[in-house]
Amino acid sequence: MCCPNVIEKVRQRISRRDLLKSTGAAAAGVLAAGCKTTAKAAPATEPVSFTRVVDLSHTLHPDFPAWFVPGEEKTFGTKTFLPPAIVEVERVFKYEEIKINLSKVSYWEHVGTHMDAPNHFSEGSSVEKIPAEDLVLPLAVIDIKARAARDPLALVTLEDVKAWESKHGRIPERACLAMNSGWAAHVNTPKFKSPNADGAHQQPAFHIDAIEFIMEERNVVSIAVDTFSFDNLHSPEYDVHNAWLGDERWGIEVVNNLDDVPAAGATVVVGQPKIQGGTGGPNRVMALV
Amino acid sequence: MCCPNVIEKVRQRISRRDLLKSTGAAAAGVLAAGCKTTAKAAPATEPVSFTRVVDLSHTLHPDFPAWFVPGEEKTFGTKTFLPPAIVEVERVFKYEEIKINLSKVSYWEHVGTHMDAPNHFSEGSSVEKIPAEDLVLPLAVIDIKARAARDPLALVTLEDVKAWESKHGRIPERACLAMNSGWAAHVNTPKFKSPNADGAHQQPAFHIDAIEFIMEERNVVSIAVDTFSFDNLHSPEYDVHNAWLGDERWGIEVVNNLDDVPAAGATVVVGQPKIQGGTGGPNRVMALV
Repeated sequence: MCCPNVIEKVRQRISRRDLLKSTGAAAAGVLAAGCKTTAKAAPATEPVSFTRVVDLSHTLHPDFPAWFVPGEEKTFGTKTFLPPAIVEVERVFKYEEIKINLSKVSYWEHVGTHMDAPNHFSEGSSVEKIPAEDLVLPLAVIDIKARAARDPLALVTLEDVKAWESKHGRIPERACLAMNSGWAAHVNTPKFKSPNADGAHQQPAFHIDAIEFIMEERNVVSIAVDTFSFDNLHSPEYDVHNAWLGDERWGIEVVNNLDDVPAAGATVVVGQPKIQGGTGGPNRVMALV
Repeated sequence: MCCPNVIEKVRQRISRRDLLKSTGAAAAGVLAAGCKTTAKAAPATEPVSFTRVVDLSHTLHPDFPAWFVPGEEKTFGTKTFLPPAIVEVERVFKYEEIKINLSKVSYWEHVGTHMDAPNHFSEGSSVEKIPAEDLVLPLAVIDIKARAARDPLALVTLEDVKAWESKHGRIPERACLAMNSGWAAHVNTPKFKSPNADGAHQQPAFHIDAIEFIMEERNVVSIAVDTFSFDNLHSPEYDVHNAWLGDERWGIEVVNNLDDVPAAGATVVVGQPKIQGGTGGPNRVMALV
């Protein structure tokens, strides 16, 4: 089902671009497509080839850094929450007793390398609705490591996107656009959260201008970051989350090993468990190179 | 780390095959490789190509069938367990309240389309130890649908493996060997468990002879079934689980849509979340065709 605000947003964008004036049929098609995914459908494709696999997921463990601290109250709006452990793996069956091991696993969804589904910041689709063909995408990696090393609030800007295109050509159709800020190397160190004087987390993220450009002018299915948020203190109202996820799109956070893939030419595979109603959650992301 | 019983098993197998007599260096290599995975390492590969993606995972929901019934006691050896819900997705943050949705997810690991890691039936590796390059494999599918339609305890036999090879050539190096019993079509019906007069589940599975053949004579990394167990009532002591997982190997259960992939030539991608210490768990399996 397509929620009214998604339809309205797509309608507004089409209107803004005056698409209706020039290409009424195409615009109507985009509007209809918005109910499943805002990015355009897959065209008949050329074969994709690869010779090696790169692991883009971190191992999730109880000390893995997140946007919350277990047991430390977190307030959103008028609500205060008490976050649980990052992940609990409680061994229920024990090999030493019955020759079988089995654990009960539990977590708040947005920990480790994970997806944000549209419904994390909207009334849009939950995670199991994302079709498999949308989980295998050309990967475009924008490297802002040098700037991020100087500024933990560095942003992927519209200029970065255009510079990438100057070097590698137009962002491929139905791409995943990833930020490589070098943050994956800090994942088990205090640098990953880089708190400021007030204790607020600092980490690189996307600039809303870059996001609006790829929403309006390119056909990008997913965004990805090697930090734990698409937004940082430059967008305290979660502009990127609201714009991107609110437009029936999704993305991946806390990605690993982007240094091991080329800026252009790899294929990302997002191994997202299909848990009904989920708003995202831990997954296995790999690159085919 | 390689546990002693894995080293010993690999040593026994090498001894049994008299590999040490003829190819000492190669045998020593296999022994060393046993610490990571029993299957042989990836050779320099030819490029793999694909043009489409097939979803091989089911959606996991609270009514999904499993080898246990929530709230109904289950006994293994001297221990009795009270299984919880198949999966719990408890919405903690609510969009209607704070413009963010987020859920707490919990499950016993072996539900839905999922992996059995070596440590599910051994003291071997947990799920996060399986390297990404082992999660992308040539897929060989053995179709026993006709036999399974007549007999819910049908088995993939050694003869089935040999018949597959007669038609498609030798099982590819580092393959995933899958059983297509047609059971995926029954997943939300009573037929999936097909209880006998005593209430015991009936479902197709692998014959231990087929498993021993692919362990001894072929280089197979993973097995896969479209039912919820590699074993059935023909092997009540879990012969296949013990032999395969106990040999530092892994597999996938409750796979979907095997009718939509060719018997030979596809590539399986096992999107397995890297949860430290896990014995397997829900994942996203896809085929690249």
